[in-house]
Amino acid sequence: MSKGERTHTAILDHATGLASQLGLTGLTIGALAENLKLSKSGLFAHFQSKEALQIEVLNHAARRFSETVVRPALHETRGAPRMRALLEHWLNWERDVALPGGCIFVAATAELDDRPGPVRDRLVALQRDWINVLSTSFRKGIEASAFRADADPEQFAQDMYGIMLALHFHRRLMRDAGAEARARRAFDTLLEGAAA
Amino acid sequence: MSKGERTHTAILDHATGLASQLGLTGLTIGALAENLKLSKSGLFAHFQSKEALQIEVLNHAARRFSETVVRPALHETRGAPRMRALLEHWLNWERDVALPGGCIFVAATAELDDRPGPVRDRLVALQRDWINVLSTSFRKGIEASAFRADADPEQFAQDMYGIMLALHFHRRLMRDAGAEARARRAFDTLLEGAAA
Repeated sequence: MSKGERTHTAILDHATGLASQLGLTGLTIGALAENLKLSKSGLFAHFQSKEALQIEVLNHAARRFSETVVRPALHETRGAPRMRALLEHWLNWERDVALPGGCIFVAATAELDDRPGPVRDRLVALQRDWINVLSTSFRKGIEASAFRADADPEQFAQDMYGIMLALHFHRRLMRDAGAEARARRAFDTLLEGAAA
Repeated sequence: MSKGERTHTAILDHATGLASQLGLTGLTIGALAENLKLSKSGLFAHFQSKEALQIEVLNHAARRFSETVVRPALHETRGAPRMRALLEHWLNWERDVALPGGCIFVAATAELDDRPGPVRDRLVALQRDWINVLSTSFRKGIEASAFRADADPEQFAQDMYGIMLALHFHRRLMRDAGAEARARRAFDTLLEGAAA
């Protein structure tokens, strides 16, 4: 990477953490400038508008999610080991210290579900990619005869997402220390129900 | 109710719908005044501060939730019929046309999980009440021998909450028409696993 690219990436890293706290729609060029003690005009050279900044932050977070959650799991054997690896890396993502306000995609979902526009469209496309990773990974487990032939990959993906959302809620709002153990038990039950 | 109380309740109804769209933290006395075409000073006579307004809206939504979801379900037989009634009334709440932006508690959770203060404290207390309704209702099913003696009420409550959060996400952000059928199937599986 050139020096300019490194600077841009460093700003995006910082902006992603800030968005996890302020909410994605709270992330404006002004808020980022104040937080980084940089000039607004300097940041406008990097991001032409608030929407462009928010979309770049989503793309940046999605690249990091892909590197830390998706890619390592795809090296695991198809079936339960791969689905379990997706869960474990997802749990690590949830705990990521670089996201002080928790998963930016969960926060952005609650903010943007009612707000049509390019930022929502980008979020939907990224979430669609992630749901497809879950359902496709499960389907490959069926093809490998690791999961029941009549199991429904979309059902598994939605159920797995629900386990993570319930964990997010019980941990971040309720500060419930038992939530992660319950999430793991729910996932074990889900895998048992899918076993061939 | 006196005329004054009826007015106050009508304002709260309107404010709750508005908060479901703007987010609870976006609901200020100024925003409510503009939306209702009332004077800010008139609304200040009803609500002394933004936080007081937000807390009253949470309490108002919780009373409506209790009337439409909790109370009707408690008339059902303990065990699967009562848990299923809680799910059905909760699904109706999710579809409630008076909440154009979707469940106000889900939206407020994403906004407030990082913001300490009296509004967050109130939200946590109300969510705690609801989780307790779920786990206590399940426990009464165990006492009635409708559910396995070794089933975990807190596990059931967290799993049931996850099914609803996944539905909320798949329907409101992803506009996935199949999400509710999947949520019902997940709940059937959850109940089967708990059956005595």
